[in-house]
Amino acid sequence: MKLGRLNHVGIATPSIERSLDMYRRVFGAEPVSPAFDLPAQGVKVCFVDAPNMQVELIEPLGPDSPIAKFLEKNPEGGQHHVCFEVPDIEAARAHFDGLGTRILGPTRIGAHGTPIFFLHPKDMGGVLTEIMESPRQAH
Amino acid sequence: MKLGRLNHVGIATPSIERSLDMYRRVFGAEPVSPAFDLPAQGVKVCFVDAPNMQVELIEPLGPDSPIAKFLEKNPEGGQHHVCFEVPDIEAARAHFDGLGTRILGPTRIGAHGTPIFFLHPKDMGGVLTEIMESPRQAH
Repeated sequence: MKLGRLNHVGIATPSIERSLDMYRRVFGAEPVSPAFDLPAQGVKVCFVDAPNMQVELIEPLGPDSPIAKFLEKNPEGGQHHVCFEVPDIEAARAHFDGLGTRILGPTRIGAHGTPIFFLHPKDMGGVLTEIMESPRQAH
Repeated sequence: MKLGRLNHVGIATPSIERSLDMYRRVFGAEPVSPAFDLPAQGVKVCFVDAPNMQVELIEPLGPDSPIAKFLEKNPEGGQHHVCFEVPDIEAARAHFDGLGTRILGPTRIGAHGTPIFFLHPKDMGGVLTEIMESPRQAH
């Protein structure tokens, strides 16, 4: 499998609103659309466009959020994961399974409406890595 | 100033060689060129291409390396910084200075041979951010 396009960098934040203030002030950047909840993943997310990828801001939905522990260690937020695209999520899952790269949980629908899964940072040089099926172009 | 192209994600590693083994095995990815030393920055670096950006692997050159402390906290390595391009480094520096965003040290020549500087993570939502003048296209 070839290294695909970087879809986004995931950045954890205690407050998407505060982070958006910073992106506006520093980079004149507006969110692509309003922040929205992903209750199944325990997070609220919001995307900001750079010319060749997106920044995904991630805020915990509650104290049990999977990013709550990250924010305890990094109260101001910080780089949480990187997300690379693949053409076929099931083929990618079989590829990583075959290599013994640990996959965190089931394949599920991500923030872009396409299937995703996460690879364990301990098998990825310390980097939590999301694998995402490329969104299909609208016809 | 507009949010520019993401040039690379910087990933600290205790061993570029070991990280490259992982990128080869997992993603069939080869480095763009052999690893090289940046003695002025106390690091050795190596770039791996994704279709729309690069992964910069960074290994400390010695115990005084600026990334030595990061690796003490993250012994397996991890996401260290993100790097966005700007058309004009001096204009960018004046922009951030004017906003009161803390700049870490002088403007210097980065791994791509163009001028760069770093912004303090405390002013950037916990994200160490490199600002890099876009490489000019060869004629």
